[in-house]
Amino acid sequence: MDSAAAPSAISRVSAVRSDRGKTLESVIVEEPLEIRVSQGEVESRVAITMRTPGNDLELAVGFLLSEGLISRRDDVLEARVCADPSLTPRQRANVAIVALADSVPHPARVLDRRFTISSACGVCGSTSLSDLHERGITSVQSSSRTFDEEVLLIDLLKPSQRLFAKTGALHGAALVNEEGVLRYVREDVGRHNAVDKAIGAALLEGVLPSGWSLLLSGRIGFEIVQKAVVAGISSIVAVSAPTSLALELAEEFGVRIVGFARESRGTQYC
Amino acid sequence: MDSAAAPSAISRVSAVRSDRGKTLESVIVEEPLEIRVSQGEVESRVAITMRTPGNDLELAVGFLLSEGLISRRDDVLEARVCADPSLTPRQRANVAIVALADSVPHPARVLDRRFTISSACGVCGSTSLSDLHERGITSVQSSSRTFDEEVLLIDLLKPSQRLFAKTGALHGAALVNEEGVLRYVREDVGRHNAVDKAIGAALLEGVLPSGWSLLLSGRIGFEIVQKAVVAGISSIVAVSAPTSLALELAEEFGVRIVGFARESRGTQYC
Repeated sequence: MDSAAAPSAISRVSAVRSDRGKTLESVIVEEPLEIRVSQGEVESRVAITMRTPGNDLELAVGFLLSEGLISRRDDVLEARVCADPSLTPRQRANVAIVALADSVPHPARVLDRRFTISSACGVCGSTSLSDLHERGITSVQSSSRTFDEEVLLIDLLKPSQRLFAKTGALHGAALVNEEGVLRYVREDVGRHNAVDKAIGAALLEGVLPSGWSLLLSGRIGFEIVQKAVVAGISSIVAVSAPTSLALELAEEFGVRIVGFARESRGTQYC
Repeated sequence: MDSAAAPSAISRVSAVRSDRGKTLESVIVEEPLEIRVSQGEVESRVAITMRTPGNDLELAVGFLLSEGLISRRDDVLEARVCADPSLTPRQRANVAIVALADSVPHPARVLDRRFTISSACGVCGSTSLSDLHERGITSVQSSSRTFDEEVLLIDLLKPSQRLFAKTGALHGAALVNEEGVLRYVREDVGRHNAVDKAIGAALLEGVLPSGWSLLLSGRIGFEIVQKAVVAGISSIVAVSAPTSLALELAEEFGVRIVGFARESRGTQYC
């Protein structure tokens, strides 16, 4: 597995002009990551996402979990960076390959089926909601924490966001276990990626964060709640606001949503 | 064309518990939008994006421009919301259909070709950069404004973000023409959507914002610069930071990037 935040996650821009004169400035790195799965002899591309390098294998695994292509640690035989010698080092570093166990349904079949379902009945919020039911997912376990305890968790996130402090351009996500211990702090230029990295890191260690809390530096959109539901997460505590569809989904699956969590204050939606 | 911000763009959540007791709270609406194109008798789905309802036809047209499926006003015969009576009103409102002129290459061919190119050579930052060259796009026109003039433009954006003030959860994008006049202020739960709406609105009025500035309430990622380059925009002025790949792309195509523009201060990257 690759380490926490690769040194390459920050680059320096050589000439920055500002009202303080010319200076060096740290800039966060964004590069495309191609996520491939392999099963037996067959390798296929599942997605390309723009991400901050680092924790790429966790990102790939977390993404596959969210999308319903895998559901547990044993579904993954191996996660590795591409070793194709015909590619440049920069290209190789941007391809993550997840080898799936033979027992896992092939991704093309899973994705085709889902596309067909939503295509047949027209797309709307409720189609999006019912997609998780189609996948056999039911409600998550209720949070064992009170609202007041939950609000305070957000104070754990910011001091642990190492790269954000240097660049001001990164989203952070982290998990908090049932004992209130902060785990798997991850950062990325994309919120969804940061969440996938945190959840993927847990899964690769054989941990499904059922009953845990998800901390988030930004807004709570529909897809964030979707990722939480799939991982069995009980509550989402975020610095910013949730959307309407995020709240609908959270209500349907019993995820507690705490928005605008800052300085021991927050808003619980229910 | 649909109007600025639909009333449905904000919903009220009935029970919100906070440290100020139970209150009503405005929450921004997020719904999936399916973007379809039609050409002759053939209709096909191009993408689904999670967006804030309102200006959906502009969003669809802006998205098609960004993706290289259209390049000018005349490529669009008509943009309309789906009228299929077998769908519910909520479902119909979430499907935007853009009828393309016969002269436009069919989207499946355009997207297939691009996928093949990037698939063949491995994905990396430079593949992403060269994609725009493949599409025949060269550098944009230089901004006619000074850096100091550019920084001040951001002050135009916030007062015009109507929904943000109510919900605290929306991104804003707007265009400023060569005379410094603010045009096409658009908001969305997604930054990319807000930019697509603003550019799509201009295109539908027959305006290609060549030489204009793009104002943005958030960060400048690669895809934002990509959208700007395709539209011929000369500069991007944003409240937050750019990423490394955004800067690479901006440099290659001559787009000026001003980050952290707040209260008459900003940082120019070059």
